[in-house]
Amino acid sequence: MENIKTDICIVGAGPVGLFAVFEAGLLKMHCHVVDALPAVGGQLTEIYPKKPIYDIPGYPEVLAGDLVKNLQKQIEPFHPTFTLGERVENLDKQEDGSFIVTTVAGTKIACKAVVIAGGLGSFEPRKPAIENLEDYEGKGVTYMVLDPEKYRDKRVVLAGGGDSALDWTIFLADVCKELTLVHRGTTFRGAPESAEKVAALAEEGKVNLMLKSNVTEVFGEDKLEAVNVHLESVVHHKVETDYFIPLFGLVPKLGPIDNWGLELEKNAIVVNTVDYSTNIPGVYAIGDINTYPGKLKLILCGFHEAALMAQSAYNIVYPDKKYVLKYTTVNGIQEI
Amino acid sequence: MENIKTDICIVGAGPVGLFAVFEAGLLKMHCHVVDALPAVGGQLTEIYPKKPIYDIPGYPEVLAGDLVKNLQKQIEPFHPTFTLGERVENLDKQEDGSFIVTTVAGTKIACKAVVIAGGLGSFEPRKPAIENLEDYEGKGVTYMVLDPEKYRDKRVVLAGGGDSALDWTIFLADVCKELTLVHRGTTFRGAPESAEKVAALAEEGKVNLMLKSNVTEVFGEDKLEAVNVHLESVVHHKVETDYFIPLFGLVPKLGPIDNWGLELEKNAIVVNTVDYSTNIPGVYAIGDINTYPGKLKLILCGFHEAALMAQSAYNIVYPDKKYVLKYTTVNGIQEI
Repeated sequence: MENIKTDICIVGAGPVGLFAVFEAGLLKMHCHVVDALPAVGGQLTEIYPKKPIYDIPGYPEVLAGDLVKNLQKQIEPFHPTFTLGERVENLDKQEDGSFIVTTVAGTKIACKAVVIAGGLGSFEPRKPAIENLEDYEGKGVTYMVLDPEKYRDKRVVLAGGGDSALDWTIFLADVCKELTLVHRGTTFRGAPESAEKVAALAEEGKVNLMLKSNVTEVFGEDKLEAVNVHLESVVHHKVETDYFIPLFGLVPKLGPIDNWGLELEKNAIVVNTVDYSTNIPGVYAIGDINTYPGKLKLILCGFHEAALMAQSAYNIVYPDKKYVLKYTTVNGIQEI
Repeated sequence: MENIKTDICIVGAGPVGLFAVFEAGLLKMHCHVVDALPAVGGQLTEIYPKKPIYDIPGYPEVLAGDLVKNLQKQIEPFHPTFTLGERVENLDKQEDGSFIVTTVAGTKIACKAVVIAGGLGSFEPRKPAIENLEDYEGKGVTYMVLDPEKYRDKRVVLAGGGDSALDWTIFLADVCKELTLVHRGTTFRGAPESAEKVAALAEEGKVNLMLKSNVTEVFGEDKLEAVNVHLESVVHHKVETDYFIPLFGLVPKLGPIDNWGLELEKNAIVVNTVDYSTNIPGVYAIGDINTYPGKLKLILCGFHEAALMAQSAYNIVYPDKKYVLKYTTVNGIQEI
């Protein structure tokens, strides 16, 4: 448990959070950055460090990991501090208008402004609305195929109409004792080649393909034993199974930020485009986590948002000073 | 005289204009770029190619000239075409909603959308409001000291309170036969050291320093012979002089774009922040030339504006298609 005091607490150490340190630093504001992940870079480090990005302005091609390294170098003169591997939990506004941000581990960051640069947040599977479904999680119901070998010679019911459902149907057809794919439509959203392959497997009798259908109930004593499938809401069909795996994609989750009293719209934080401030004075949201008319979830847009945020946060951190924009070509970078 | 047909005509080949080619290219739109300067890069090429910029995200330091080269490389897959060294003159909306942009040289660019990325436009001196002042331009009235030797042993009246006025007063004190500095205030906006030096020169009698004063009239038969100076609007004083040089700084000028019917505010084009469109449907303005609440004249902001503009222009260029944002990390770059 640590007590930290800074000008701005930045929640999220992805590319936009890092660049926010730079824009704040140009205006002589110190930053402390918190991230649930153990390393800086956000998705760039976690998901695709070796993938090239082509739409960072001025970089015909840059590896995601290299972009993170360059941003780290760019913010060095401003000596940011970091708390990594701890998710933020609480936001408490103090009487003097300042904030205390607390992490799950109890680290407290006292600051004058908070900048949420949390990217897409964490991801959770989209769950179908079936009563008692969660009671069977870990007892036959799962939302992700992590180790396909687990399903060898078992009975499995998959649900979904996207690439994930199609791909796993094709893969598990040779693995499972009995495989059923339940899809509410008649056409698939996934790749046409995959859909054709699944149709062929169904004709061969290797897959039970149930179209225009939905799983509506789950049964079992201690663990899952069967699911009920409704065909066009008229025919009910009970399928005995060991596993039920709904593959309906992932939905981003804000996590505890959800309870901070921020105005949200479809899991994103509503901001205005003058300074990317939220409905809570002193709290800003930049990058993929925010939303406004015209919003694009691009890193380069987050950079712009960071610049405008910094101008506004300056008025909170230095209420008595007036900032005049200075160009780095004229003034260079002054360490803080 | 050339006739060109393209999807988007971009006015201005500075960094933001170049990056607009990239964002348009990602959406399969072809661009033609026009610039009054003979080379691409705008101010970066013209004014500070060898200066480092420190606030391009992901570049701890980059020479302005190198940034331009990288942007040129980044847009190569989209094969933009250029008309350089020709200023745009007219914008004509066609009956079908498309445009024809015409340059001073008569080149005509037929396009579906126009993106003005003209930077700060060209610069012109700020002129004091004195009747008949322009009649004496080139006949004793000038707004810039180009060759100080021209004023050797002549009588000169300077006006202004900034660095330019102070610096030239100090320099010309030893050059002119008689030198007068007229300033409406009592303190100077320029460097304090320079102001002290001017005060010392005034005490030595080398400069006539007229504070709280304004030049209100200019006289002369064929050329300038005298100016009238008002002290606090009560004392009138006639100063015989060969030259009158008001040094009130430079103001950016839009040039012919001024007459295109665009909504302007302080020499900038008013846009909305959803797609950086102007009051003329199909015409966008991005980079330093536009204005909106919170606007910062930073290259990185222009990049963001280019991205949002492209999404909107897509609906004009391809009215029947629906664009879904694709990430370059997933899809790479497809040549067009």
